[in-house]
Amino acid sequence: MIYLDNAASTPVHEKVIEEMLPYFREQYGNPSSIHKHGRLANVAIQNARKRIASLINADSNEILITSGGTESNNTAIYGIASQNKGKHIITSSIEHDAILEPCKHLEKQGYRISFLPVDKHGSTNPEDLKKEISSDTCLITIMYANNEVGTIQPIKEMVQIAKEKNIAFHTDAVQAVGKIPVDVKDLGIDLLSISSHKINGPKGVGALYVKKGVKISPLILGGGQENGFRSGTENVASIVGFGMACELSKNNMDVNTIHLKKLTAKLVSRVLQEIPTTTINGHPDMRTPNNTHFTFLGVNGEDLIIKLDENKISASTGSACSVKIQKASHVLKAMGFSHEQVTGSLRLTVGITNTEQEIDETVDTLKKVVQELRAVSPYKSKYNF
Amino acid sequence: MIYLDNAASTPVHEKVIEEMLPYFREQYGNPSSIHKHGRLANVAIQNARKRIASLINADSNEILITSGGTESNNTAIYGIASQNKGKHIITSSIEHDAILEPCKHLEKQGYRISFLPVDKHGSTNPEDLKKEISSDTCLITIMYANNEVGTIQPIKEMVQIAKEKNIAFHTDAVQAVGKIPVDVKDLGIDLLSISSHKINGPKGVGALYVKKGVKISPLILGGGQENGFRSGTENVASIVGFGMACELSKNNMDVNTIHLKKLTAKLVSRVLQEIPTTTINGHPDMRTPNNTHFTFLGVNGEDLIIKLDENKISASTGSACSVKIQKASHVLKAMGFSHEQVTGSLRLTVGITNTEQEIDETVDTLKKVVQELRAVSPYKSKYNF
Ligand SMILES: Cc1ncc(COP(=O)(O)O)c(C=O)c1O
Ligand SMILES: Cc1ncc(COP(=O)(O)O)c(C=O)c1O
Repeated sequence: MIYLDNAASTPVHEKVIEEMLPYFREQYGNPSSIHKHGRLANVAIQNARKRIASLINADSNEILITSGGTESNNTAIYGIASQNKGKHIITSSIEHDAILEPCKHLEKQGYRISFLPVDKHGSTNPEDLKKEISSDTCLITIMYANNEVGTIQPIKEMVQIAKEKNIAFHTDAVQAVGKIPVDVKDLGIDLLSISSHKINGPKGVGALYVKKGVKISPLILGGGQENGFRSGTENVASIVGFGMACELSKNNMDVNTIHLKKLTAKLVSRVLQEIPTTTINGHPDMRTPNNTHFTFLGVNGEDLIIKLDENKISASTGSACSVKIQKASHVLKAMGFSHEQVTGSLRLTVGITNTEQEIDETVDTLKKVVQELRAVSPYKSKYNF
Repeated sequence: MIYLDNAASTPVHEKVIEEMLPYFREQYGNPSSIHKHGRLANVAIQNARKRIASLINADSNEILITSGGTESNNTAIYGIASQNKGKHIITSSIEHDAILEPCKHLEKQGYRISFLPVDKHGSTNPEDLKKEISSDTCLITIMYANNEVGTIQPIKEMVQIAKEKNIAFHTDAVQAVGKIPVDVKDLGIDLLSISSHKINGPKGVGALYVKKGVKISPLILGGGQENGFRSGTENVASIVGFGMACELSKNNMDVNTIHLKKLTAKLVSRVLQEIPTTTINGHPDMRTPNNTHFTFLGVNGEDLIIKLDENKISASTGSACSVKIQKASHVLKAMGFSHEQVTGSLRLTVGITNTEQEIDETVDTLKKVVQELRAVSPYKSKYNF
């Protein structure tokens, strides 16, 4: 089987598994316990926290560990909204549901939400942000890299704009961290979300970077873990695994990027050369190295995925991490895609375990199945397939 | 090392680890993806859900999977409170912080919270509940078994009272499930919290039983996983492990109970016979089989734990699962303990991996260290040590 859906989730690195196992078997203490079993678990968390912090150039005590990217986003949005500094939030029209849904929830409670538009490449424009800011704006949350088309947003510029107005800035960096260098100090950002399972760590763990001095309210209350900002017995093994995934990600960033870019380049050039009436989506340069997003006109993307699946290739129409798979992509719609373009789309996201041979096999299969589907397409005559 | 803090957390069962490993290595798909990698992950979750449901005699679709007992409790409390059916909540004075803190948060927002008293055994009285109910009561949340002293509450009777008044009833059953038979249908209860790491499953995963027809609002919004009631990419490996832990717990309940009771009985009889001026706390009969809670008068419990730790024995003063270890136990205070009794307390909680020999070694050590501490106790002359 060939797995080309690494933006949805990734295999856990063997070194990560190795690192986790002792925390199931021997070091199973509750980190809050004062005996040795507890202290060992606590030390393990602190070490992992350092590794997580290091990947984004944060300080250890700025890392709030959560159950994943979704909880990190919810914590950031509700955590800032509840500070009573305003009732207006600015976000973009291409965010993940883990941003859009909490925003819509606040909208029902009387908040005003602005959704910045994007251009045909899926890029937001800092000028649009400037215009949207009001005296009531309490939070700006713009994703770092889009999960469907891979477009990287001009976050640093936007943070600058927010800073001038003293408005908290959060970014959902779930698809960026581990793929491109992300430096919170250089960005000057207030809050940033990460997820472990996108970078070859275990699922169910993530982090929210909260810059020193930035005040948020906790989402989950109880025993007071994570300095009172996220209660619940810490998920020690997963946290340790996440830490290792961050360390590997940092240490291998250069090698990984070269590998991902090579695979992506091969995929793109072969597909565009060998499969006619195909377009490539997202920004040409400002994009994550692992993402490729095509539109095969005249083809239904979901049919394509099913055909690829029959050929043992795992791919995606775009948005994963959402159970609403039937819904037409709000990202592609915001980019101005027609219904036909939206439905003809396919996302292929490579990962560190993929090989060139897998890419070749995938293109060979893709050629075949696109042809098959086009042979019975309602658009057959339109394009002269 | 001897681990006698199984109420704080437990070693993960070898069969649970075995069950989890493939979900790190091969079946790492995102359960929302429609390809085979995704479908396999999704099937795994549904199977785990059945196992979790089965342990408490629930239906699969009544199980909401969360990141642990704390999140389950928060989801229940906020989830019911937001239904606008009243602004009064009844709980007990001996709840875990994962209940008390969300209740106190609601108190700040204008809710009225009643904390039922307990008797010297740590038991709540259904008559007190009856008296406390008002027309504004929207939720009753009383823990099933106490985490410090092991006392089991008269939940079935209390659910009956709530039902007559049509008030939602939740129980934090984190310390009960897996130790004693818990049957949600027999109880007729609305909501019930479970945590995996208390029953030899992994940390960072738990469940909230929500009876069919009971309406709650989600705490975390996003991709719409868990039927929209708990968004975030599912923690597949941990969920699978939790499922296995539930199955083992169910299948081995009888054998485990006999084992735990034997260890506990030996511990209690030897300590009471061999260490003078010692009392045993909690209810004599209505208690979980794994919990023993002593007061060694004239001794400081924290000193005792440190001494035991030096002797490679892991024990607890009472409350684990809370970072506020310095705070005097609110549970013992509610039971009417004097300051001296509170500080002299020690909780020993046995688990399935403990042996009789470990109990013997523990009592031998305990005898020695209690004697050492009493020799320098400020209460030395009071008790004639
Ligand atoms: C951009 C983005 N944000 C948030 C999430 C949610 O993170 P998690 O899966 O850890 O809940 C995802 C994917 O799932 C994502 O791609
Ligand atoms: C009674 C009780 N409720 C809730 C919890 C919290 O559950 P978790 O550790 O899974 O967050 C604990 C222990 O941690 C507990 O003992």
